[in-house]
Amino acid sequence: MTDIFAFAVGVTSTNGSGVVLDCFFPHPILKPKAEVLSALSNLPQGASALTAEQAESLNSAAGATIVPQSLLDMDQPLISVRLDSDAPSNSIEEVYLKLHLLSHRLCLPNTLNLDGIFGHLPNLAWTSAGPIEVNELPAALMNARAQGLNLEVFSVDKFPKMVNYVVPTGVRIADASRIRLGAYLGEGTTVMHEGFVNFNAAAIGPNMIEGRISQGVIVGAGTDLGGSSSTMGTLSGGGNIIVSIGENCLIGANAGTGIPLGDRCTIEAGLYITGGTPIAVFDETGQQVRLVKGRDLAGNSDMLFIRNSQNGQVICRTNRQAIELNDALHAHN
Amino acid sequence: MTDIFAFAVGVTSTNGSGVVLDCFFPHPILKPKAEVLSALSNLPQGASALTAEQAESLNSAAGATIVPQSLLDMDQPLISVRLDSDAPSNSIEEVYLKLHLLSHRLCLPNTLNLDGIFGHLPNLAWTSAGPIEVNELPAALMNARAQGLNLEVFSVDKFPKMVNYVVPTGVRIADASRIRLGAYLGEGTTVMHEGFVNFNAAAIGPNMIEGRISQGVIVGAGTDLGGSSSTMGTLSGGGNIIVSIGENCLIGANAGTGIPLGDRCTIEAGLYITGGTPIAVFDETGQQVRLVKGRDLAGNSDMLFIRNSQNGQVICRTNRQAIELNDALHAHN
Amino acid sequence: MTDIFAFAVGVTSTNGSGVVLDCFFPHPILKPKAEVLSALSNLPQGASALTAEQAESLNSAAGATIVPQSLLDMDQPLISVRLDSDAPSNSIEEVYLKLHLLSHRLCLPNTLNLDGIFGHLPNLAWTSAGPIEVNELPAALMNARAQGLNLEVFSVDKFPKMVNYVVPTGVRIADASRIRLGAYLGEGTTVMHEGFVNFNAAAIGPNMIEGRISQGVIVGAGTDLGGSSSTMGTLSGGGNIIVSIGENCLIGANAGTGIPLGDRCTIEAGLYITGGTPIAVFDETGQQVRLVKGRDLAGNSDMLFIRNSQNGQVICRTNRQAIELNDALHAHN
Repeated sequence: MTDIFAFAVGVTSTNGSGVVLDCFFPHPILKPKAEVLSALSNLPQGASALTAEQAESLNSAAGATIVPQSLLDMDQPLISVRLDSDAPSNSIEEVYLKLHLLSHRLCLPNTLNLDGIFGHLPNLAWTSAGPIEVNELPAALMNARAQGLNLEVFSVDKFPKMVNYVVPTGVRIADASRIRLGAYLGEGTTVMHEGFVNFNAAAIGPNMIEGRISQGVIVGAGTDLGGSSSTMGTLSGGGNIIVSIGENCLIGANAGTGIPLGDRCTIEAGLYITGGTPIAVFDETGQQVRLVKGRDLAGNSDMLFIRNSQNGQVICRTNRQAIELNDALHAHN
Repeated sequence: MTDIFAFAVGVTSTNGSGVVLDCFFPHPILKPKAEVLSALSNLPQGASALTAEQAESLNSAAGATIVPQSLLDMDQPLISVRLDSDAPSNSIEEVYLKLHLLSHRLCLPNTLNLDGIFGHLPNLAWTSAGPIEVNELPAALMNARAQGLNLEVFSVDKFPKMVNYVVPTGVRIADASRIRLGAYLGEGTTVMHEGFVNFNAAAIGPNMIEGRISQGVIVGAGTDLGGSSSTMGTLSGGGNIIVSIGENCLIGANAGTGIPLGDRCTIEAGLYITGGTPIAVFDETGQQVRLVKGRDLAGNSDMLFIRNSQNGQVICRTNRQAIELNDALHAHN
Repeated sequence: MTDIFAFAVGVTSTNGSGVVLDCFFPHPILKPKAEVLSALSNLPQGASALTAEQAESLNSAAGATIVPQSLLDMDQPLISVRLDSDAPSNSIEEVYLKLHLLSHRLCLPNTLNLDGIFGHLPNLAWTSAGPIEVNELPAALMNARAQGLNLEVFSVDKFPKMVNYVVPTGVRIADASRIRLGAYLGEGTTVMHEGFVNFNAAAIGPNMIEGRISQGVIVGAGTDLGGSSSTMGTLSGGGNIIVSIGENCLIGANAGTGIPLGDRCTIEAGLYITGGTPIAVFDETGQQVRLVKGRDLAGNSDMLFIRNSQNGQVICRTNRQAIELNDALHAHN
């Protein structure tokens, strides 16, 4: 009996020709336990249609609820997706399962193989009537007008928004259009109106997020991102360092970072640090001890970044809460 | 006959168990006049159910329209909320009345007792089908799919957006998801797509708002906030000074302030001033007369803040339109 | 037979009194060809009602599909708008035709006479039930509540969002509320959640737009706007120079420009350049050759703008990819 990486049963939206547009998996399962594994052994790898009978026998064979009653009650075609390993995705159904795994907090960002997901996700109009293929949208708009109805188009994108599929416990999301399916929002996370979390990006929680968490970026517990603050991404126009931010940091409003930060770091409001930024490192006595590039400080903890407002110098000094950095600095004098 | 602080009749949304999720008060009344007071004297303090007969007798006793005909016509249970004083809120209905008082322009921010409002506001999914409790959302999403419908989730938050309850006269709001109920938008206010106004925050109007007005912040007449500009809040990660901005100021795009400003102040695009920022103050002749912290300039008028682009010095000089500041400066020489 | 500047057949939304609130033109035509011109010669200049018979005879007279079958099938009153020249608009229908011309990529920004468009566009509540006049909104909100329905208000604005009228081919728009009708999005444009494109503003495509394209601004092919980056507008609070950005530029996250840029220019993350910013121009050898104002560099190519992080000096040096700028600089030594 082979291991299974992930499994889910769900429903899909399709276009007029039966092409799948999106998938909804209410209860995805990561690494099913032994008793579930045997129940799944007859199902094919990848996506496949699942009859109600199959679904019910899955539940009884596993001795557990794999397919919740609410899905069985839906009276709509069900699909199952079985991923034997975390390989590149072969279908839209597989991509959606991975995005669900992230948003259901079953996997952290950067732990899943997301190769090829863009290719399997169609660019769709996400509307008040659900997803519609872009080339079918003009007819849909016309049709709505003909009936005196409003068809509202919320986005035209490959990724849907998370909350139409799952709202994890203990979060607040002030503007749901800014959280893509595939985002990981931990317990206690508040994303304010200016906040943004891409797919494969995380706020571990608790966090107050008023800035942007780019694809691949993980923000640790107790860290706050100020309004319009930026974590530099790697998909376009950004650097090639994957940014992460540790615990209990504060990225000020309109500030940003292109380097990963450890714990208890602060960047003052309005200051943007990149990997290439020359930064003067100061010790506790106010002496400059080094001149480094931002990337040389990548991942360190207890750093406070400010720009001296009288001479324009960007400096890093030990955050008041701790002295670890300072010892580390002098070790390299 | 005791005075009454505020009164309103409205309708509520409830969950399956009758728990109130939100309240809609079309015509809240602040400090009712004498003839209305006597009509209200039989109603209990706080929130209570109001029969149609009670509502009609209210109108006839007051000799005025307290409960508009449109509410009477609704054929839905009505509630009344009577607040004898501006005390901490005891119920969601009382909180909603206070938020309505602000958005109906009956009270300015920071003039209401908002103690305890977070505790009375449930965290809800605000959807195309109205507010839904977060723990009931999965079933609602499933149910919508089962019927081939789209359930759109707009936010998951304690506060709803203002415009689903009231649109004050003479305003434009390019993206309504960015204005919470409890915001005060004065006549002549335009909030562009990047603008944001929290509850208990105001644009007195006329204003062009393309930046963020944090909780507790009041922006005066004729002041413009540039795109992504920031007013530092006090709720999380910000300072402890309540920011306000006077009249005819300009906060440049991507700029920000952590200190209150008087009238006719300008912060250049991209510059962030905080209470702790050392700032060189220049007189009209171009001489530096003082080096102060931002908070030392709090509330002054006629200030222009720029960062000298050749030596990095953040300076404050007299805004060309006026000379009041300059006199004040030399008084402290 | 006179020339015609533009023509379209469409449908409108109206209020209870028949006043037009918006217009939908699925197939606007710019400068109709000769065979079409004659078919249109009997129609009046400006907006007018069009009977189904007239519409069908238009098609047969032109020997082409001027009015698509889908419009004929709608069983709703049709209107035609014929603009003999690009004059100031005389009606809401004419304004909507011009906005459609832009979003259908038939005209570039700044090539149309947009005089007077604000005056013809009513300020409307754009809702899940379509556009509603602001003064009719309270009754509509009440009416929806009475029926147990949710009326969602998306914006209160003169301009609707583009995608409810047209989605041009080959674009992605992560948050549709941030693209106004009248925006021009070229093939290959992705506008992320933080991006914004006003009416009469363009991303020529391909572009990755995570910043704001203000009214009148055109962004060239291959140029990326980083998150929250700003192009200074001329409508309010901005300068009086119309900004444009050439090809293959990169405006960093939280950066901004108040001057037009040529091709292959970069502004580092967090730096805002305005027309009045003193900028030190450096040659390839690292020597400062000039001190100029931002506006003196307007429109040049191959410029890299950074703020020296150790002395605060804003400098412009030749972008590594090219040397044209450098030659130009020394010519002015």
